[in-house]
Amino acid sequence: MSDHRVAPVTAHEPPYYAVVFTSVRTEDGDGYGDTAERLEELVTEVPGFLGMDQARTPGGLGITVGYFRDLAAIEEWRSDLEHRAAQKRGRAQWYEAYTVHVAKVERSHTFERVPTRE
Amino acid sequence: MSDHRVAPVTAHEPPYYAVVFTSVRTEDGDGYGDTAERLEELVTEVPGFLGMDQARTPGGLGITVGYFRDLAAIEEWRSDLEHRAAQKRGRAQWYEAYTVHVAKVERSHTFERVPTRE
Repeated sequence: MSDHRVAPVTAHEPPYYAVVFTSVRTEDGDGYGDTAERLEELVTEVPGFLGMDQARTPGGLGITVGYFRDLAAIEEWRSDLEHRAAQKRGRAQWYEAYTVHVAKVERSHTFERVPTRE
Repeated sequence: MSDHRVAPVTAHEPPYYAVVFTSVRTEDGDGYGDTAERLEELVTEVPGFLGMDQARTPGGLGITVGYFRDLAAIEEWRSDLEHRAAQKRGRAQWYEAYTVHVAKVERSHTFERVPTRE
């Protein structure tokens, strides 16, 4: 997974959806990086895609949270053919276990540190 | 953050809630580990707490997802005095930025690899 940002996705105006994907990888990472990079590009083309947060503890759990305006946007992403092929390969090769939670955000807020001058 | 598990929290029967906390830390981690460990114990005592997933990319984004049966359970955790003190210290010292999304899970599923014999 690439990580271009150093800031979390900020709060959007509710309601919107969060798709929480938690996973543990197998030791077979062949092809994973390229596919992940491709999917991260593809999802940005889905109308209603609001952003994505990703983190992975080395050797441990990975969490990806995708934010979408509504269920129609999630459905479009779910049915994307490249995404479906990657999911199938993920179950066959890359993932030991994963859970997906599709959830409607009811409230959210963002804190950002105010820079201080010395 | 401690990480005792190597498996994601599995899907519960919807509806339930996911509280997604995404954060970037400051360089000042003094006291953070002890507080995080204490809070991870405390939250398990909240009636309706269903589990927690955590991941942090070294030097990058951290994501914690807490799962709760209902809003009452989240409210109980929100108003816990030790938790409130830790949140205050977090804004003053540990976090550069964070976002909290409180979301009602409408559907979820878990995949687990079936062990194969050679």
